[in-house]
Amino acid sequence: MTTTEKKHERELMDEALDHLENAIENRNTSEALNALETLDWEDQRWAISHLSMRRLKLLTLILGTADAAKLISHLAEAQAIEILEELPRPEAASILDSLPRTLAADLLRELHDEDAQEILAGITDEVVRGELERRMAYSEGCAGSLMLGGAVTFPVAASVGEVLADLGEHAEDYADRNVQYLYVVDEAGKLVGVLRLRDLVLSLRSKPVRELMLRDPLTVPDSMELEDLADLFEQNKFYGLPVVDADGRLLGVVPRDAVARETADEQADMFLQASGIVNGEEIRSMPLGERCVKRLAWLGPNIGLNLVAASVIAANEATLREVIALAVFLPIVSDMSGCSGNQAVAVSIRELTLGILRPGDYWRVVLKEAAVGMINGFVLGCVLGSIAALWKGNIALGLVVAAALMLNTILSVLLGGLVPLLLKRLKVDPALASGPILTTCTDMCGFFLVLSFAAATLGHLAGV
Amino acid sequence: MTTTEKKHERELMDEALDHLENAIENRNTSEALNALETLDWEDQRWAISHLSMRRLKLLTLILGTADAAKLISHLAEAQAIEILEELPRPEAASILDSLPRTLAADLLRELHDEDAQEILAGITDEVVRGELERRMAYSEGCAGSLMLGGAVTFPVAASVGEVLADLGEHAEDYADRNVQYLYVVDEAGKLVGVLRLRDLVLSLRSKPVRELMLRDPLTVPDSMELEDLADLFEQNKFYGLPVVDADGRLLGVVPRDAVARETADEQADMFLQASGIVNGEEIRSMPLGERCVKRLAWLGPNIGLNLVAASVIAANEATLREVIALAVFLPIVSDMSGCSGNQAVAVSIRELTLGILRPGDYWRVVLKEAAVGMINGFVLGCVLGSIAALWKGNIALGLVVAAALMLNTILSVLLGGLVPLLLKRLKVDPALASGPILTTCTDMCGFFLVLSFAAATLGHLAGV
Repeated sequence: MTTTEKKHERELMDEALDHLENAIENRNTSEALNALETLDWEDQRWAISHLSMRRLKLLTLILGTADAAKLISHLAEAQAIEILEELPRPEAASILDSLPRTLAADLLRELHDEDAQEILAGITDEVVRGELERRMAYSEGCAGSLMLGGAVTFPVAASVGEVLADLGEHAEDYADRNVQYLYVVDEAGKLVGVLRLRDLVLSLRSKPVRELMLRDPLTVPDSMELEDLADLFEQNKFYGLPVVDADGRLLGVVPRDAVARETADEQADMFLQASGIVNGEEIRSMPLGERCVKRLAWLGPNIGLNLVAASVIAANEATLREVIALAVFLPIVSDMSGCSGNQAVAVSIRELTLGILRPGDYWRVVLKEAAVGMINGFVLGCVLGSIAALWKGNIALGLVVAAALMLNTILSVLLGGLVPLLLKRLKVDPALASGPILTTCTDMCGFFLVLSFAAATLGHLAGV
Repeated sequence: MTTTEKKHERELMDEALDHLENAIENRNTSEALNALETLDWEDQRWAISHLSMRRLKLLTLILGTADAAKLISHLAEAQAIEILEELPRPEAASILDSLPRTLAADLLRELHDEDAQEILAGITDEVVRGELERRMAYSEGCAGSLMLGGAVTFPVAASVGEVLADLGEHAEDYADRNVQYLYVVDEAGKLVGVLRLRDLVLSLRSKPVRELMLRDPLTVPDSMELEDLADLFEQNKFYGLPVVDADGRLLGVVPRDAVARETADEQADMFLQASGIVNGEEIRSMPLGERCVKRLAWLGPNIGLNLVAASVIAANEATLREVIALAVFLPIVSDMSGCSGNQAVAVSIRELTLGILRPGDYWRVVLKEAAVGMINGFVLGCVLGSIAALWKGNIALGLVVAAALMLNTILSVLLGGLVPLLLKRLKVDPALASGPILTTCTDMCGFFLVLSFAAATLGHLAGV
């Protein structure tokens, strides 16, 4: 896209936003729908994030449940949650009731507990409420939370002709449900086989499905976790896997792409957490106070860790007073080793995700990282040491800085490589905690190494 | 899994690895296959990463092309590339020839150019070579690179009966290709319609498909990028979208889950890049030299940036000499503002990905971040300032530290929020470059603020 086109697009979107805002202020439902229709889904997300909460609430009210639910289903999850929390409970309940069940349960899971319970209580249909409660109980990303309901099932006694007749009769309904496989269940609801459309088409109409179905189909328990689901789909070509409870009863179907999308979401979460956005996603339309508190929840502990690390400098002030030039190199040494350690963290987390590395592979990590640490520590140490020596014309200063960076690089790649394994074993999310642990340790060690090497060679550093 | 079970699993895997290594040393194909079969795909990745390159090469040779290709198709991409680069060219070529085309092209794209060309030249089948070359020319993640070939097409003149007969005849073949839709093309190969199985089943056998097909199907150009594909799939329920060239000829089909998987890969890349693993993935079985150079490619520029930042300390040594306690707070102020800025970077990158934020939304970011920066800066500044004042019993020191951290937090959240937008506009990957740019600037500013505030109040800081 050229700059002019971009500018034009920008103008069009601004116009659409104005249009939407006017329609909302005038309580004009058809104008609001019109304005939304000129925007594709991504543009809708943009426009929604630029509306004030007052207008957003008004918009959902004038749209009515069905259109509001449609709009909300296209928004980013964080946007949808924000709106649901602000809406009057009855409106929120009826919107949730109109959303696909998987999405509704995902949103309920992310809402504050109290809000979720109050909104749930407002859903009048007991069957729906029951299903949402069951779904909410599943942990995020497991088969139970990803499965779609409404699998098309037939009794084991049915004939091919009966199945085809039913398919013809409910064609439109099934098309909406994206039917890929047909499931055969016994009287107790237990899954006993799977039917393929093409086998049906090519069979005698009088044949019982019992003879045609694929027996002992691959099923997954509702508790199966995302990683295992991803593995299964990688090893098979199925478009969906049937989910069964402990008694083998069919609960739903996990579609292949739901697993891939959830994996992408997990990777995005990992990126956010490693960058200090914890306790769920932040978008800038959230209330200011909430955003500040969320960010401080991460910064607060970090200031504590930083103080612990810097206490090493405080304890060695005397040395620093003698060789003030060290103050220049303290942050460089700690930051550079932090960078090296972070690389090792990323490789470990990635290898764990790929299954190349197991939490027990400590020795492998130590061996592989020690070698990199020694070489890179040597290279970086020589570079920084030479600069230090040349700058002050003092070889001892260069040696102190070089030795400290070298050693600290080795320490931090070892630590960086191992911390994710240890955290994984302790069932703590490595993306969340590796960074702060690593940084604190490498800062402390870096400060300590520079200052104690300097203290040991103080005679040669005089006047620097 | 309990600890005992984990230990047992570990032992089983070690046994399987021993078994595999013995089979390789004895050049025993069936034993090697046996050993591999006791492992699921994730375990195979683990075992492969624990074999020496010599044994790995031997393994692919004794397995033969078909089994080696099967093994390689389950490995992590970085593992597969490593093996292909080390194998004799003819073996690598015949393995690539046996892999699914999308995977083969992905691997070729990741190989060193020279290796890729040499391996390609070894593929004797000109049709295959031509297709791989065409696919390699597509950029990563676009429709052309994600599409599967072998769409099932029928001429527009065919009847329902003819199509069903063909489907029956080639049932096994089509099952392998995961046929979801049937495509109707005119004489020039131009896509004119799509057939749904269920419509076929419920139609008169003599009806021409022309009357049954859905006309003007949604198609995507081969150059369409991942983000747009993801949007399209989100807005539609299709399991796959037909890819056409400029003349509307059907080239292949992009399956929905390929788009979701590629999105997950992009998110994983983002995490790696933000952690300093650039120029492609690193796994620890890669040669030591390569790993060191790859990591240094990131650390090298970083040491330069660090020196630039630290030069601010060097320029203000005189102040530091007077108030040595500042040396304790310099790294804390720069690190804490770096953390705050990184949060803003992550939120901007995430909002850009979700479409909530556009590269032109500078003012929105400034307004939203300034508020957070002021509040969090105030809170953090008060905390750190109080600690400084109490520690040395000097209120001026506290004020210097508090003011510096406060101001620098505001600066760094603004910068952190804006840098990804600017980089995106300059077509530089925000995940790659935001971190170093941000850290350098906030370090410089942090050092400068602490030291110049101290210089201005030097009279009150004496003896601290």
